[in-house]
Amino acid sequence: MDQFSITTPDDWHLHVRDGDALADVLPFTARQFNRAIIMPNLTPPVTTTEQALAYRQRIVEALGPDTRFQPLMTLYLTDNTPPDEIILAKSSGHIHGVKLYPAGATTNSESGVTNITHCHDTLAVMEREGMPLLIHGEVTHDHIDIFDREAVFIEEILNPLIECFPTLKVVFEHITTKDAADFVHAAPDHVAATITAHHLLLNRNDLLVGGVRPHNFCLPVLKRETHRLALMDAATSGSAKFFLGTDSAPHSRSSKEQACGCAGCFTAPLAIELYAQAFDSVGKLHQLEGFASHFGPDFYGLPRNTGTLHLQRRPWHVPPSYAYLDEEIIPFLAGTQLDWSVVSE
Amino acid sequence: MDQFSITTPDDWHLHVRDGDALADVLPFTARQFNRAIIMPNLTPPVTTTEQALAYRQRIVEALGPDTRFQPLMTLYLTDNTPPDEIILAKSSGHIHGVKLYPAGATTNSESGVTNITHCHDTLAVMEREGMPLLIHGEVTHDHIDIFDREAVFIEEILNPLIECFPTLKVVFEHITTKDAADFVHAAPDHVAATITAHHLLLNRNDLLVGGVRPHNFCLPVLKRETHRLALMDAATSGSAKFFLGTDSAPHSRSSKEQACGCAGCFTAPLAIELYAQAFDSVGKLHQLEGFASHFGPDFYGLPRNTGTLHLQRRPWHVPPSYAYLDEEIIPFLAGTQLDWSVVSE
Repeated sequence: MDQFSITTPDDWHLHVRDGDALADVLPFTARQFNRAIIMPNLTPPVTTTEQALAYRQRIVEALGPDTRFQPLMTLYLTDNTPPDEIILAKSSGHIHGVKLYPAGATTNSESGVTNITHCHDTLAVMEREGMPLLIHGEVTHDHIDIFDREAVFIEEILNPLIECFPTLKVVFEHITTKDAADFVHAAPDHVAATITAHHLLLNRNDLLVGGVRPHNFCLPVLKRETHRLALMDAATSGSAKFFLGTDSAPHSRSSKEQACGCAGCFTAPLAIELYAQAFDSVGKLHQLEGFASHFGPDFYGLPRNTGTLHLQRRPWHVPPSYAYLDEEIIPFLAGTQLDWSVVSE
Repeated sequence: MDQFSITTPDDWHLHVRDGDALADVLPFTARQFNRAIIMPNLTPPVTTTEQALAYRQRIVEALGPDTRFQPLMTLYLTDNTPPDEIILAKSSGHIHGVKLYPAGATTNSESGVTNITHCHDTLAVMEREGMPLLIHGEVTHDHIDIFDREAVFIEEILNPLIECFPTLKVVFEHITTKDAADFVHAAPDHVAATITAHHLLLNRNDLLVGGVRPHNFCLPVLKRETHRLALMDAATSGSAKFFLGTDSAPHSRSSKEQACGCAGCFTAPLAIELYAQAFDSVGKLHQLEGFASHFGPDFYGLPRNTGTLHLQRRPWHVPPSYAYLDEEIIPFLAGTQLDWSVVSE
């Protein structure tokens, strides 16, 4: 197969920041995707409907009036998010999920939830209102090894949570382990997962062999090859419980290449090409459309897109960098060759 | 205990480079240690006795005539090291070991051994001559997870090696796993190991939690806490099979904080203080002298030092950086507080 077409895809997990950074990175996503779930971990975080709608307005303005792109907003769950805020969010029509960051788990998670029991009343309203809970699924205890944190989260937090709220819609975001894939497979249909392109393409050797590579550093951190293979199986299985979420996260070169490099891979400029590369590597390109374009809107209760994205087998090299703020940003797999190109309309 | 004294220690694994870099870093080691095993992974590597003696001369000249410091030289083993070179090295009186780098395992290992079977004749002469083999114990196959590479090396290379050469003196350098500590404990007395300060003090969470920290990146890479605890047990056990080797490795700040950061921790300026911190953390300061000052010379068949190093419990902060070449170098644990200070004579 040298070319194929899919329904225009959506990105169900995306970081676009704000201000000048927003203006620099959002066009990359809007070129490929019709919609994206916008993460609320700004500084300060987007914790209210009012803030989310204002943020949505800034995103719409950054793209100008001619865009078809629709931002799907989220709230940042804290220990103190009032249940009424969920009702307000739902009624706005623009807020499609509430994000749980365990405090300290990743970039700008300092205001996150310190103990999920603080949120029970709010989660009960989310369950009743059909508001999805989007989860960064890692515990943050110092004594838990970083490579165990997702599996421990399943045991300590996720299993009790879905037992306590048996109809709460849950998206286990950017899963990285066989444990997580198995958990989602076995869970009810209203529990789903997003999978990033970088977790499909790399394992932890790509972070540490031959030198430490901050541009391959993300959270949850890359795992060993057996886990990557389990994610590939899940993503290409045709199961509607797994769908596309890039977790593309812009960090300037200087904030990655430093004594304490930020977590996140910037995949937005080449997102669908990366997923095509991954699916093609196991002969499963025919499963890409469901994963990228159907299962996400089906889960969120939104209509599927009507447009079409065309891909062609035409090798190209990822640019070494893009302009970003006052300096530059290094895209994921900078300088390497990819096999699939998006065909301009 | 607020102060104690030990016989002047030696460093049984050290990188000092050459030229201006040598002049910048060697004084740190010479201040604390009487002798050091000097690693031969220059570019090009030190593969002959003639090169090693010339390198020794440059080291001696870099310190000037008043130093008591003695460099103990090594050869870099290649697929083609002739058996006669071992005889020449031994007769020089200045070469105390031959280093095995599996090709591709770490910094400047490109000329290393591609297959240990190529070296059998040379190893046979080393066994006969009592020349120690110093081993970077990691396999380098792409498909082996980086965290498994030391354990796989034991199974694939080290067990067959000590069976084939039953009296060859072996130092398993900078061990990082419980597997390696157990292997050395169980091996005959002519098989020993060095342990670095950074592997005693950190686990892999210190490399990856909260950001990727290139100054904590070394090879073999930091492992999980259970392995760190096994190394602490071995180092503080009083067993003469485990002794001090810092593996201090200078890399400029810019070569660490980049897209592919070099492996190695620069511990030379604070080496004995770090070991004191580690031993003190488990109440085993009384075991430091054997580990730092006795077991190494005993293994290598050299006299113990006669001087004394005094340590005092007096907290201080590790400097944020030192001048290095045209820029700077970041020491291990830069900016943090250590409890023990060397008392100047």
